[in-house]
Amino acid sequence: MVAVEFWYEFGSTYSYPAAMRIERLAGEADVPLLWRPFLLGPILKEQGLNDSPFNVFAAKGRYMWRDLTRICAAEGLPLIRPPIRFPQNGLKAARLALVGEAQGWTPDFTRAVFLANFAEQKDIASEETLATILSGLGVDADAALAEARTLPVKDRLRAQTEEASRRGIFGAPSFLIGDELFWGNDRLEAALAWAKRA
Amino acid sequence: MVAVEFWYEFGSTYSYPAAMRIERLAGEADVPLLWRPFLLGPILKEQGLNDSPFNVFAAKGRYMWRDLTRICAAEGLPLIRPPIRFPQNGLKAARLALVGEAQGWTPDFTRAVFLANFAEQKDIASEETLATILSGLGVDADAALAEARTLPVKDRLRAQTEEASRRGIFGAPSFLIGDELFWGNDRLEAALAWAKRA
Repeated sequence: MVAVEFWYEFGSTYSYPAAMRIERLAGEADVPLLWRPFLLGPILKEQGLNDSPFNVFAAKGRYMWRDLTRICAAEGLPLIRPPIRFPQNGLKAARLALVGEAQGWTPDFTRAVFLANFAEQKDIASEETLATILSGLGVDADAALAEARTLPVKDRLRAQTEEASRRGIFGAPSFLIGDELFWGNDRLEAALAWAKRA
Repeated sequence: MVAVEFWYEFGSTYSYPAAMRIERLAGEADVPLLWRPFLLGPILKEQGLNDSPFNVFAAKGRYMWRDLTRICAAEGLPLIRPPIRFPQNGLKAARLALVGEAQGWTPDFTRAVFLANFAEQKDIASEETLATILSGLGVDADAALAEARTLPVKDRLRAQTEEASRRGIFGAPSFLIGDELFWGNDRLEAALAWAKRA
């Protein structure tokens, strides 16, 4: 079976519903799933953007929040607005998501961080928030946070972000099946269908 | 019944599949449909963009053409790439689409112009192309083109574009049900479902 790679950024609004539903949908489609956190900021910078397009283009931003509200309502997902800031800095959370891979807690951790950002108005850049989430999952928070600060983990996230850019990713969430790219929560079903046919 | 307003720009790639399928889907949903051509260029200029975002942001542009190819294949729509230029200038076609409203040929004309742009590599800014399309629909092309050059029609298109901006439209295609905005061909089904519930 060909896997779907789920490329997500913790500050990204549409990554939130994608993260909350992808495991269920991939399971139903019988498609293996790889969680691939990355940082969108450096990729937007390559495009000449120093902020989220939803902040740079006001009408687009107003629409996005309305659209996200409709999507979350349809999915039964909580959404408390506004988040404490937009976009939030997902650097530490993304490093932790990499740390969690070896122990298998990355999916649960990812969903909890997205809920903290978009449903609980928490500061996801704060180690206190992240430690509470980790403890709630039964993870040794101090050990995970310590590992997330090490150079190999920092280098891994940098390499993962560079890989995203190299493979054509310009926004989040994105889905890759081999070289086939799908962009946006609204392309998740099409991406899974592609993986099934591949 | 509440109508869906279909706001489209003749140069816009994703407006093409939307234009080709909206009449069928609106009919199936029993939702009245209003065709509302406008110009996206002036709205992008307000956002500080002097070209299509798909040209400004190269990775996004590469993705868009791949995504459009998949969508057209799934819809059974012809797509011949590249168009003679991207985006093409839809000014004259949009004025003609307004002229056609009184005689009822706007939907057929709209679909023919999108096919000319994206499936036939024709120059949709050329009056020759537009006259051929009009004649094919049994319309008096000289009369329609003459009316499209009059000040009232020019003013109507300008007003329609200003209305689009005022009502929050920032891209094409867009769908409005009253004040409720949906953006993108991929939101057509959601827009029709909204209209049915309204």
